[in-house]
Order: sequence, then structure tokens, then C-alpha cells
Amino acid sequence: MRPHETLLSVPPCSPSTLPETWPEGAAQELARRLGERCVWSQAVREQHGRDESPFVDVPPPDAVVMAQSVEDVSAVLAWAQEFGVPVIPFAAGSSLEGHVLAVQGGVSLDVNALNAVHAIHTEDMTATVGPGLTRKQLNAALGGTGLFFPIDPGADASIGGMAATRASGTNAVRYGTLRENVLALQVVLPGGEVIRTGTRARKSSAGYDLTRLMVGSEGTLGVITEVTVRLHPLPEAVSAAVCAFPSVLQAVQCTTAIIQAGIPIARVELLDAATVGRVNRHAGLTLPQKDLLLMEFHGSPASVAEQAQAVQGIAEDLGGLGFDWATRPEERSRLWAARHNAYFAGVQSRPGCRVITTDVCVPISRLAEAVQAAVDEADAAGQPYFLVGHVGDGNFHMGYLVDPHDADEIARAEALNRGVVERAIAASGTCTGEHGIGLHKRDFLRQEAGEAGVALMRAIKAAIDPKNIMNPGKVV
Amino acid sequence: MRPHETLLSVPPCSPSTLPETWPEGAAQELARRLGERCVWSQAVREQHGRDESPFVDVPPPDAVVMAQSVEDVSAVLAWAQEFGVPVIPFAAGSSLEGHVLAVQGGVSLDVNALNAVHAIHTEDMTATVGPGLTRKQLNAALGGTGLFFPIDPGADASIGGMAATRASGTNAVRYGTLRENVLALQVVLPGGEVIRTGTRARKSSAGYDLTRLMVGSEGTLGVITEVTVRLHPLPEAVSAAVCAFPSVLQAVQCTTAIIQAGIPIARVELLDAATVGRVNRHAGLTLPQKDLLLMEFHGSPASVAEQAQAVQGIAEDLGGLGFDWATRPEERSRLWAARHNAYFAGVQSRPGCRVITTDVCVPISRLAEAVQAAVDEADAAGQPYFLVGHVGDGNFHMGYLVDPHDADEIARAEALNRGVVERAIAASGTCTGEHGIGLHKRDFLRQEAGEAGVALMRAIKAAIDPKNIMNPGKVV
Repeated sequence: MRPHETLLSVPPCSPSTLPETWPEGAAQELARRLGERCVWSQAVREQHGRDESPFVDVPPPDAVVMAQSVEDVSAVLAWAQEFGVPVIPFAAGSSLEGHVLAVQGGVSLDVNALNAVHAIHTEDMTATVGPGLTRKQLNAALGGTGLFFPIDPGADASIGGMAATRASGTNAVRYGTLRENVLALQVVLPGGEVIRTGTRARKSSAGYDLTRLMVGSEGTLGVITEVTVRLHPLPEAVSAAVCAFPSVLQAVQCTTAIIQAGIPIARVELLDAATVGRVNRHAGLTLPQKDLLLMEFHGSPASVAEQAQAVQGIAEDLGGLGFDWATRPEERSRLWAARHNAYFAGVQSRPGCRVITTDVCVPISRLAEAVQAAVDEADAAGQPYFLVGHVGDGNFHMGYLVDPHDADEIARAEALNRGVVERAIAASGTCTGEHGIGLHKRDFLRQEAGEAGVALMRAIKAAIDPKNIMNPGKVV
Repeated sequence: MRPHETLLSVPPCSPSTLPETWPEGAAQELARRLGERCVWSQAVREQHGRDESPFVDVPPPDAVVMAQSVEDVSAVLAWAQEFGVPVIPFAAGSSLEGHVLAVQGGVSLDVNALNAVHAIHTEDMTATVGPGLTRKQLNAALGGTGLFFPIDPGADASIGGMAATRASGTNAVRYGTLRENVLALQVVLPGGEVIRTGTRARKSSAGYDLTRLMVGSEGTLGVITEVTVRLHPLPEAVSAAVCAFPSVLQAVQCTTAIIQAGIPIARVELLDAATVGRVNRHAGLTLPQKDLLLMEFHGSPASVAEQAQAVQGIAEDLGGLGFDWATRPEERSRLWAARHNAYFAGVQSRPGCRVITTDVCVPISRLAEAVQAAVDEADAAGQPYFLVGHVGDGNFHMGYLVDPHDADEIARAEALNRGVVERAIAASGTCTGEHGIGLHKRDFLRQEAGEAGVALMRAIKAAIDPKNIMNPGKVV
């Protein structure tokens, strides 16, 4: 069942109470232009007013448009420009930073139905897809081609949302982030004009890099309606391993040594012992309840063996307590599913909690001190948390598990987050490796990019979206 | 001797004839603020009014400022904003597309003296350098670290210029282009404000990607005054090979098969037989005068052997006439120096000529037809040319050798260029893989990005540089 098919039972074109803040006639005109794709029901609006961020008190959007085509997206943006009403693009709703929340009201523009696989060019290793297609759906569509789409942020996020937040995840250490793996976009600009950026060529020096400008713009510059991504050959051999360490510090030091040795490891993920315990309970696994590195090696059989041997040597030198190997696909799938469920395992461990997630990324030489300080401060404060990390990139997440109705606890977790971020920026790192700025990190962006940098971003925003209709209140 | 030391013998602050188009008092004020770094001599101005583009009749800039510091750059841009005089950043002058030409007069801002190595972080594999440092100077500075900077566009270009044109070259098939290898920039904006973009973290989702916006902006949005690049471990083993083919088509088909097989080849370069002949004469080599692929493999000894074996199998299937191996460093250096001199070998083969260079890049599956059509049309037209290509990326260059004073011949070469570009765009490719738009490809940019895309670029340009002082007349 496609998302909009759930909605045919609700009165489609008749807002029971017209949005008070909209200009005269705006609602009627939206309903006239979009017909039954425009939905006003409380349930649907609330469903589009939620994400995985810590914010719980934001009112839902005033309306939802279930776009069925690029023309629908264009019509909504033309309407929004005309009436000055905000538009917030929406797909999987898996954002962690409040990107999809309608903080200034307006229309949630649901692009989940734009989920076509427009083209797979196996010979060029590219795919062109709609923004609502999820990464798992894309990989399913690639079945039998010998190719895969490596970007893997854990959640089964939409490709459009991943482009909008410059997402990455566990495979980025080897295959790069969304930024390196997007070739071209179709984007609807505020006002409704449709542009194409980039081409299917692997590289280009043709003018300003509009593709990379849109990637990571979090829906504030336009709506991504088509994404052309790079694909990669499925590795001939894959081997995954779990290695336990006596401490988080030693696990991180091992990671740093692996990266500095130039080993092309495909995945290297950190879980602290408490998180492993929660994951074991959540997923019915029996991983050793220690600070762990979960690793994966891709390549020819000889290359995988060579990488694995080199990593084992490094781990032994750094206190590694032995390797468990998973070479069968189903074992590996269970391992990575468990890793991806660390978030939900954390949430489950404290019923009713929300998660305030840090997302700093630092130069690899500064990672050990950054992780250690984050853990020490959270322990000292008595704040429940989980710790996971795409440590090969220097990126880690403290997930502070907070009672969303306890202002003191939220303040404490936010203070811990602030400490993590400020240390990361001081260490030449970034406040967000992959989750984006959204609502939650706007102050940190100013610290990181400086007032002049943010002013430049604002100038670009104003040039492209002078009426500030695109996802206002986010990023800048 | 640093560049500005050549200039102390010329009257530093007294333009013999004041630039006629400048506003009243502008020249005196520039001289007052920049002192002897501001140079008016005809010889120096002419030296800064030339590049490797086919344009020969453009008057030189009105003045040259030999910047010694970021503060100098900032002072020039503040002055330029005040008086509305154009500024054209200048470093190595190796542009092929007219980027440094003062088509609207103004000041050539020479940043060659900003060539410091500010920091090398071996443990993080990053280096922060001034824009005037050349790629060879950077690699010399990395001696003994076990690291190297792979981007290699042939010419010993400046890192700042390479960032400004989003350069790539022979190693990009394995290591990516400048775009993927730049982490952070310092940029002086029109008006003189200094910003920093990016951090030393490997990835970030922090706001709009100002780094990637500046990379490839060709000096039209600001002046890059510092570049932080990624470095890579020197491969444990390196092996280079030359393989001859009966035809250009078969050489390209071999490349396509190598890429589609997912072999992580480090370099794969095409030279047609006539070009090989010129290179042999120019460099005193004895390469077989056939259509050649020059290849290089990087990795562990086992991985290099594995790659080489796989490629030999593919080449044999596609008519390859045997491999010559170069494993000693000095043999490899001679081979790649010869490749890099293909341009000058071409120029030398027709005294007094200039080169009109195509630079298209297409999806790898469309490369064979694109190269074949380009060769067929040039042969049919009787136009002298050389053919080289970073074929692993789908990027190739026809270098049409033209008499710069023969309008008919230039028109013929431009028509051939146009055909190459239009076919590339029709094949989902780009008009420029690595040289940039400059003066020469502005019409092609409109064809590729569309009027709406170019309008968006113009809106960004106007937002950042409202007085249009930065390298006006280029790109958009």
C-alpha cells in the first residue's frame, strides 16, 4: 500500500479549521491545485510532525501534501512562494535533529510516493531514483546486478533525505559519504522551477557545484526530486569480525592505528560494553559484553585475508582480546542489524525516553581523547547513554537517554552535548559528521563556521529562497 | 628568488599611464595601500596576462599585486569593492581556458608568495598549505612522511589554482579529484572578509558545503588563501605498464572493461599512436608507436600482482599487443613525465601553434563512441591534434593544434570542439571534466546546466559578489 492510499478515507480537500496564520484564500487555493493529495486530517498531520529528534512539543504542520509527481512538488512550491507559506520536505521521517518539524507552521510535502527507480546503468555503475526510495529498496532493486549502494546510516532512510542531510554511516570509511556518491540531482527551487545539477560523468569542472550545495542543505534551498548515485561492485569476498577490548580507549586506539596504516577497511564500528549488553537483550545476541569493534573487510579473497591479518596484528598490540569471525552472510546480517538497532536498544532500555544524540567528527588523531572525555563526563554526571561510533571516520555518537518531560535532565544532557561539541571544534573537528544541523545544532554551526561563514550561508539562502519558504528556521 | 624580488628594480608605485577605465584616485589608493607589492610595469603585467589558453589578443591586466600575506589579499579585495575594479587571482598561470585573462581589465592578484606549508598532520593524513604552493612542492615537503598528495593534472599547478578549477588528472580514477581531497579552505570574500570553510574532520554535515562551492568557482567568488587537503599513504608496491593496442577503440574498450570489473587501478591513460610518436621525439623515449594505455597499480605486493594479472587477461581479450612493465621508480618517472609532456610535445610539433583543448567526460559506457567520433571528425577535417585521456574516469582531451592567426583554422577547431561537447552532453556527460569553464566554455555550460541552472549560479554569484569584481566575465 502506498502512503497516500491510507488517506482516501479522510475528507481530502476541506480543512476543518483553516490554518489561522495563512493568508486569505491560501488554503482553498492549495486544495484547488492539489486536490485530494492535499490532506488536513489531524492524524496525518501529526504523523508528519514527528521525527527521531528530542523535540516533542512542536505543533504539527498545518497541512500535508502527498506529492505524486515532480509537477505536484513544483505546484506546491509555486503556491508557497505566492502565499508566503512554509514548506517542509518529508520522506522517511528518520531525522535526528528536528529537520522535518514545522516550527513555523506550513505544509509538510511528503515525497514518499516519488520512489521510482528511474534507471540503473550497471555498465556505468549509476542509479537514478526518486527521493522517496529507501536505501534498502534501492539495494533490493540492484539484486542480480553485482552492484550495491553502500551508504548505510542505520535507519532505512530515504535517498532524498540522505542527500538532504549529507548522510553517511558504517561504510563511509571505505566508500565515502553521500557527498562523494551523488553524481546528479533534479531539484525543484522555491517558486517551482525545476533544475538539473550534475551529469552522470564521474567528474566535472562545469561551473559552481550546485549538486554539492544542495546535498546537505536540509530542504532549505529546494526539494530534491531525483538523485543519481554511484554504485559499487559487490566485493568478491566479505568477512566480518568482532574484537573485544579491555577499554573504549584501546578500541579507539586500535581504530586509529588501522586507519593510519592505510588498511582499506570497509567498516569499523565502536560499541561500548553497556551498549553491547542492551543490543544483546534487544536482538537476542550473545556478543561478549565488552567494549567492541565490529569490523568488515571487502575485496578479493587474498586482499581480505591480508587486511584481516594486518588488523589482527594491530589489535593484539593494543590489548585486543581476540577475534570472532563471521563469514556467512546471515551471521554478518545479524551483526550489522544488531549494530543498527543500538539506537532502538538504547531507547528500549529506558521506556518513554527520547535521545539527545551527539554527532561530532574529529581528525582521527584526536578521536581517543574526544571519546574518553565524552564518556568520563557522562559517567561523572550519572547520565544514561549509549556509545556507538563510525570510528574509522573519527565520528562517534553519545546517545543521551533523557526523560523528555524532565527539564533538568534535558539541560544536563544538552550541557554534556555542548561539551562534546566544543571539544570537537577545538580539535579541528565538526559539530555534526552526518546528522545535519536541523533545529538542534544552529548555535554550534555558528561556533564552527564563524559568524562570517554563517552570514555567507544566509546570503546564499536569501538569494535562492528570498521569501524564506523552504524549511524556515533550520540550519541558518 | 621569490617572484616579487624580480620587481624591485621597476618603479613600484607609479603607474606611467594611469588605467583609463579606473575611477579617479583608485590607482593612487591601491599604490598607497599596497606599496611596492603593487606593480605597473608592462613586462610584469604581460606575464600575468598570459596562460595556456588559445586566447592571444587579450590586453594584460592594468596592474599586478604581488600579495605577501592574507592581509594583502584582503586589502586588495576591500579596495576593489570600494572602487569597483576587477580582481583576477593568479598563481601558476597554467590554465587552459583563459581563467587568468583580464578581459575586463583590473588587477591581477598574484598569490605565488603565499606558498607556505602551514602544517602537515601525518597522523591524520592532512596538509594545510598556501595557495601558491605547487603540487610538486607539496610532495617534496611530504618526503619521509610515507604520505603523498595524489592529484596530478600534469602541469605543476598551484594547489590554489587546482582548487579553483576542481582539477584532477591521472590519479583521479583511484584517489578522486581535488573535490574529494579538499577538507577545508580559507577564503577572502569580495570586500575583504576572511572566512574559513570546513574542518580537518573527514566528513561533516554542518550547513551548506561552502568548501565545495568555492572549489571550482574559478576565482569568481573569492580568493582561496589556504587549502587543507587529504593525503594518502604511499603504496607499499607500485607497478606501471604500457600496453599497445591495434586501435584507439580497443584501448578504450579495455579501459571500460577494467573499470567495470571494479579493479582499483591507480592510473590508466590513453595516448594515440601519433601522440606517442611526438612524445618519443620530445622526451627521447622509445615507446612503441601504437595506440597505448599507460597504467599504474598501487597496493600491497599481492594486490598489485592480482590487479596486474586481471588487467593482462582483459587486455588480451581485447586485442592488447603485450605489456611492457616498469617497476623501478626512475622508469616510472620517465613514463609519467612523458605522459605529462604530451601537451608540450604536441605544441612543439607545430611551431607557433596554440592548443584548443577539449575536456569532455562521459559515463564510461559511452567513452568508446565519444573518442571514436572525435578522432574520426578531426581526421576527416584534416585538423592536426593530439589525443590523450584520463580514460578511467571517462575523460579525454583532443588537443587541436591551431595557427593562432588563422581564423579559419580556429573556427574549424572550435567546430570540432563543439561537436565533441555536444555529443558528450547528449551522452549524459559534461563539457569539462577538469579544466573548468573559464572564458572558453560559457556557452557549453548553458547547454549542460540549462538556463535555469546558470541563472541559479548567477544568483549565487550576485549574492556573494554583488559588484562583480571577482574575475568578471568568467564561468557565468
